[in-house]
Amino acid sequence: MAVGDSMKRVDAYEKVTGAAKYTADLEPKNLLIAKVVRSTIANGVVKGFHLEKALAVPGVVKIVTCFDVPDIQYPTPGHPWSVEKAHQDISDRKLLATRVRYYGDDIAAVIAEDEVAATRAARLVEVDYEEYEPLLTVDAAMAEGAVSIHEEKPDNVVVHSSIKLGDTTYEEASSEEGLFLLDKTYQTATVQHCHIEVPVSYAYMEKGRIVVVTSTQIPHIVRRVIGQALGIPWGQVRVIKPYIGGGFGNKQDVLYEPLAAYLCTQVGGRAVKIELTREETLACTRVRHAIRFEVKAAMRHDGTLVARKNAAYSNQGAYASHGHAIVANAITEFKQIYHDEKALEEDAYTVYTNIATGGAMRGYGIPQGAYASECMMDDLAVGIGMDPLEARLKNCMRAGYVDPHTHITFFSYGLEACIQKGRERFGWDEKRAKYQGQTGTLRRGVGMAIFCYKTGVYPISLETAACRMILNQDGSIQLQMGATEIGQGADTVFTQMAAEVTGITEDKIYIQSTQDTDVTPFDTGAYASRQTYVSGKALKQTGQILKRNILEYANYKLKREIDTMDIRANQVVDAETGEPLLSMEELATEAFYSLDKSVHITAESTYHCKENTLSSGVCFAEVEVDIPVGKVKVLRILQVHDSGILINPKLAEAQVHGGMSMGLGYGLSEQLLYNEKGKPLNDNLLDYKLPTSMDTPDLEVDFVQLEDPTGPFGNKALGEPPAIPTAPALRNAVLHATGVAIDSLPLDPQKLVEHFKAAGLIKEV
Amino acid sequence: MAVGDSMKRVDAYEKVTGAAKYTADLEPKNLLIAKVVRSTIANGVVKGFHLEKALAVPGVVKIVTCFDVPDIQYPTPGHPWSVEKAHQDISDRKLLATRVRYYGDDIAAVIAEDEVAATRAARLVEVDYEEYEPLLTVDAAMAEGAVSIHEEKPDNVVVHSSIKLGDTTYEEASSEEGLFLLDKTYQTATVQHCHIEVPVSYAYMEKGRIVVVTSTQIPHIVRRVIGQALGIPWGQVRVIKPYIGGGFGNKQDVLYEPLAAYLCTQVGGRAVKIELTREETLACTRVRHAIRFEVKAAMRHDGTLVARKNAAYSNQGAYASHGHAIVANAITEFKQIYHDEKALEEDAYTVYTNIATGGAMRGYGIPQGAYASECMMDDLAVGIGMDPLEARLKNCMRAGYVDPHTHITFFSYGLEACIQKGRERFGWDEKRAKYQGQTGTLRRGVGMAIFCYKTGVYPISLETAACRMILNQDGSIQLQMGATEIGQGADTVFTQMAAEVTGITEDKIYIQSTQDTDVTPFDTGAYASRQTYVSGKALKQTGQILKRNILEYANYKLKREIDTMDIRANQVVDAETGEPLLSMEELATEAFYSLDKSVHITAESTYHCKENTLSSGVCFAEVEVDIPVGKVKVLRILQVHDSGILINPKLAEAQVHGGMSMGLGYGLSEQLLYNEKGKPLNDNLLDYKLPTSMDTPDLEVDFVQLEDPTGPFGNKALGEPPAIPTAPALRNAVLHATGVAIDSLPLDPQKLVEHFKAAGLIKEV
Repeated sequence: MAVGDSMKRVDAYEKVTGAAKYTADLEPKNLLIAKVVRSTIANGVVKGFHLEKALAVPGVVKIVTCFDVPDIQYPTPGHPWSVEKAHQDISDRKLLATRVRYYGDDIAAVIAEDEVAATRAARLVEVDYEEYEPLLTVDAAMAEGAVSIHEEKPDNVVVHSSIKLGDTTYEEASSEEGLFLLDKTYQTATVQHCHIEVPVSYAYMEKGRIVVVTSTQIPHIVRRVIGQALGIPWGQVRVIKPYIGGGFGNKQDVLYEPLAAYLCTQVGGRAVKIELTREETLACTRVRHAIRFEVKAAMRHDGTLVARKNAAYSNQGAYASHGHAIVANAITEFKQIYHDEKALEEDAYTVYTNIATGGAMRGYGIPQGAYASECMMDDLAVGIGMDPLEARLKNCMRAGYVDPHTHITFFSYGLEACIQKGRERFGWDEKRAKYQGQTGTLRRGVGMAIFCYKTGVYPISLETAACRMILNQDGSIQLQMGATEIGQGADTVFTQMAAEVTGITEDKIYIQSTQDTDVTPFDTGAYASRQTYVSGKALKQTGQILKRNILEYANYKLKREIDTMDIRANQVVDAETGEPLLSMEELATEAFYSLDKSVHITAESTYHCKENTLSSGVCFAEVEVDIPVGKVKVLRILQVHDSGILINPKLAEAQVHGGMSMGLGYGLSEQLLYNEKGKPLNDNLLDYKLPTSMDTPDLEVDFVQLEDPTGPFGNKALGEPPAIPTAPALRNAVLHATGVAIDSLPLDPQKLVEHFKAAGLIKEV
Repeated sequence: MAVGDSMKRVDAYEKVTGAAKYTADLEPKNLLIAKVVRSTIANGVVKGFHLEKALAVPGVVKIVTCFDVPDIQYPTPGHPWSVEKAHQDISDRKLLATRVRYYGDDIAAVIAEDEVAATRAARLVEVDYEEYEPLLTVDAAMAEGAVSIHEEKPDNVVVHSSIKLGDTTYEEASSEEGLFLLDKTYQTATVQHCHIEVPVSYAYMEKGRIVVVTSTQIPHIVRRVIGQALGIPWGQVRVIKPYIGGGFGNKQDVLYEPLAAYLCTQVGGRAVKIELTREETLACTRVRHAIRFEVKAAMRHDGTLVARKNAAYSNQGAYASHGHAIVANAITEFKQIYHDEKALEEDAYTVYTNIATGGAMRGYGIPQGAYASECMMDDLAVGIGMDPLEARLKNCMRAGYVDPHTHITFFSYGLEACIQKGRERFGWDEKRAKYQGQTGTLRRGVGMAIFCYKTGVYPISLETAACRMILNQDGSIQLQMGATEIGQGADTVFTQMAAEVTGITEDKIYIQSTQDTDVTPFDTGAYASRQTYVSGKALKQTGQILKRNILEYANYKLKREIDTMDIRANQVVDAETGEPLLSMEELATEAFYSLDKSVHITAESTYHCKENTLSSGVCFAEVEVDIPVGKVKVLRILQVHDSGILINPKLAEAQVHGGMSMGLGYGLSEQLLYNEKGKPLNDNLLDYKLPTSMDTPDLEVDFVQLEDPTGPFGNKALGEPPAIPTAPALRNAVLHATGVAIDSLPLDPQKLVEHFKAAGLIKEV
């Protein structure tokens, strides 16, 4: 069995030795460097440039400003195109901005022979602005009289949407006698992906078309967006995606590829590269939306959740990017994970502001939604004096759950099993009891959080994937996926799947890691934890076709009925006895070179996926809080996941490790900060506190493996879920340890000290 | 109609502006340079090396010698693999040679950080040899007691084969009364292809496999031969072929790719490049075989050819390469072009010698065979006092010709029409009469030569080709051919064919010029004038499948019967009225992004070609001979070709121009010369007399366009034929002008002066 085997990554050796080629490794000779000139105000209008000094820098080839670019507005998010106008993404930016919407906005670009000249000249560009008051928060942007950041949305509200469940209102339901009523505001922070490889792309022209080599999760979507941004037919763009050093959703936005494409057309088709600095990456790409949740909840003292109300305000930043989809996802999580006996009312607002644009980031709103619902559940449990685990078991979604709006069904339900497995392994009940009633400056506590997560985007959006397989002359196969390896191990699990379905062993399956939109099968790309599920279905179907084509040739050679044969371990065998009949090598060589019947055996197919299923899981955390200094030390952390059958258990574990690590930062230390003018204060990895290996405890991982009937190999989402439950589990552990509920992220020392002072745990001297 | 249109080359702009990327333009960073250490004897054995001085050169990384390489013999010619051992090519070389077989043989390789270090070190390698007498000619190599150049062929004869037609012998048939009997020896020269881009390749390792980027005509065959040479499974090799700057058959041999591949494995997979110098290219790659034809012929005085006998001795040089196939082709031409009333006897010998290896070169033996038969026909015509054109018309192959051995049939017969069309346009009869009986030092004459040429290699060898087409989101298509653009315009004619068959216009067809064996459909490559025919059939078939797939989607969208629709000018139309129903752009966008039915529309198929047909043509030449200085001035030259329907008339004309130019050099000036030790004397473009534009008259071209029933678009071979008839036409024109028959190539001044002296046209002073 190839599926279920923890085979070594197919790219392990390349990546460890440094031989793997990333975008910047592939730069052609004679490459020009472009640097983006960035606004030094957060809100306003560019009135003019003084370029003389910049143009005088030796090596400068050309400077393009916001007054030069095509008057075309285009969208950047990595969503499949919609043929229905109403479902298309918001087109709210041009290649370069005259209307400045955040500090660092792209207003011009310098093209030069080298990095030094480009950087020097970019600094020497002088700009005249008309400046407005920066609107950094949702409240400021929604305030009466606030300037419109985009004229299409005069009130700065991108979208407002609502969910309602139950026959009554929250008001009505919560008026029942004897309920515990909660009324709180939970606030998440603006954080950034911090992938190792910064956004980098270069573009050049070839036969009148534009070729863009880029570090992206979504090459086929990049192709389309460049076409839109430049106003040219999409087929005139070719996008090549080499290995990429992490994306986490930031490379699911089409950030600088359109500008690189445009700039190369301004220098006769010569290659132009845009590679961001770390500072630009932190300040000027995408961030996880800060969302404020105003939550009301009513619970009976037996733990029954009666009704909830939630108003979520998402700080979108300067451009719509993925738009309202993220906060919509957040309030869906809030809806799905617990059941209200009588009523649920939710409202979500996505609001333009003058900070960095919120976009896709691992979990796509669910880390925020789960943070709100998991803080709420612990606060309710504290309120009625119930164990928070029991409160969850009492109210959480059940086997057979069907979303009332999307009809997404929880097929292989493992949520309760995860909770119970984790409870036991973690020693929840013992620890919960043991840490009651602590005093002193060092106090310990345990907390938990649960979540659910859908697999891909059906039926909200399109799920389609294609695959191609080619039989080589020696009986090995080439595997081409439209789906992308972005560091998560996709190439490895696809290799295992191909082995599983074709009977050709993994060592003879050569996956093409580089996607090239000119030749690669179509796929929307790496996001929404969709690839092993959706693209896996395309692979399985294509492998079955390839196998059939191979057995047809075996039928021609051996004159045996196809259905009496199978392929196992690189041999055509008798399906019943397993007796070898013909080696794949012999068959393949004959198929290519037969003078009687030569055929280049290949298979290619699209799978239009109209299924979905839910994954789920739980995080348990044990912390020690040093009260006087506000320091949280994570003693132990465990996640248990319900992700169906694991294709490669070791890689699955690694995936969870990564997500837990991201959750530690989200919970404890990460936050992008701005001054009052909207200028970023910590846009570097010294001041932006990403956890290091020294901040990270052992990461414990467990799984409940239930075969999902809709998964190609019983599998379902695993990519994003590990990033979801850590932050609220930590918050709840601190609550358990100290009795203090911290209702905003991150749990950094300064904030904790303030809360502990307010709670009287620290006395002012 | 797309076929028949003289559209501009799809790569014209790229090539004219220098933007087109050739192998050396694509070199990765950190590339190592390898230089081959070449033997300084022509025949012998390497006994040992002294590497100390070479290794001391700064920058030298490693030196690999013939004692280090795998003990594997492999073949180099670009033939499809044969699953039958008897039909496999001769494996007579290793990566580096201990047994030296020509001056310049590959005996070691230096790998260094740069070109200068590699070159310096290669010169400093000292070698001990055991030396044998160089065997430079067929006679020397076949002589009793000659040393065996390859131990597998003790008498140095690679192969000897025979052809016999008629119920009687030449001896018997030629004993008839009153015949004119001819007994002559015709000798061709050793010449080289002189493509602009020298052989260049670089290799590196990727995920344990070897990637080779190379200037080749035959990427899929290079893949196989590298696998053979290194003793690794063929699927572990990936070959990428960018634009190439000419090949003419020299790049239909796998010359240095296996060595580059091996060398990269010796430096940890780092990229290693081998780029030959012009001198190495001339002396150490492949050449056109010098062949000696010993011809006897018997003709009645009415012009009837009664019988012929021909013994052909082909100087193979050091290695078998394409082996006997070339002289076998030469004697086939001799057999096919004229019909003998009673008997034909032919023998062919391919003989190893110690000069550069003979390989494929445009025409593949037919330029030599046609030279022999066309000299013979003029000599016979002179012998019986008949107009050579009439003598040809009387004896040449007729409509409906079927080869008695291969059963190749001359379907669209245009040979006589070409002769008549050329006769008229050239003013043959008038000039032939006008130039009779000249005296003086400047004399003019006209000559002609005819030929026939098959299309591809069926049934002698395998003819298989595959194609893939992909519909882009904007209704344009990607076209992937296994067949290769090598400068001849293949990409352009394939684009036209695809437009013709799909109804999508040429400007929306994007052909992938680079072949990559990991993803490109299989094709044996560019040789044998096969691609527009064989690969064209694969393209036509694939285009029909793609069109069907598109119309199936149109059927889904429009709910109309497929057969009532067609695609014309990027619109799905009513097949009857031509009324537009749906644009390709709309259909394609919907097909990708439909929430109901998303499908990535592609098509891929193999065509196993089991057809062949003959092309033919004629060359007319008018010369002025300056007798005292032996100079031939070409006043006028015309070729008329019978090549079926022309896909792109302008490109067809250009193809003929190139072949005529090559024929001028072959006829008048080119010859690789050796000293008595086998050392090349003129291995550079100063001393090797390639004609320049100043030596070239206006090149007149005409066609007889008959639709061939077997061609995908009525077309048949055109790539090689133009290189065939020029040299004998010039020789016959000189014969007409001077009465002197020059029976060896080239017609250079030194040789002419000698002949004119012998004939008494020049008196010794």
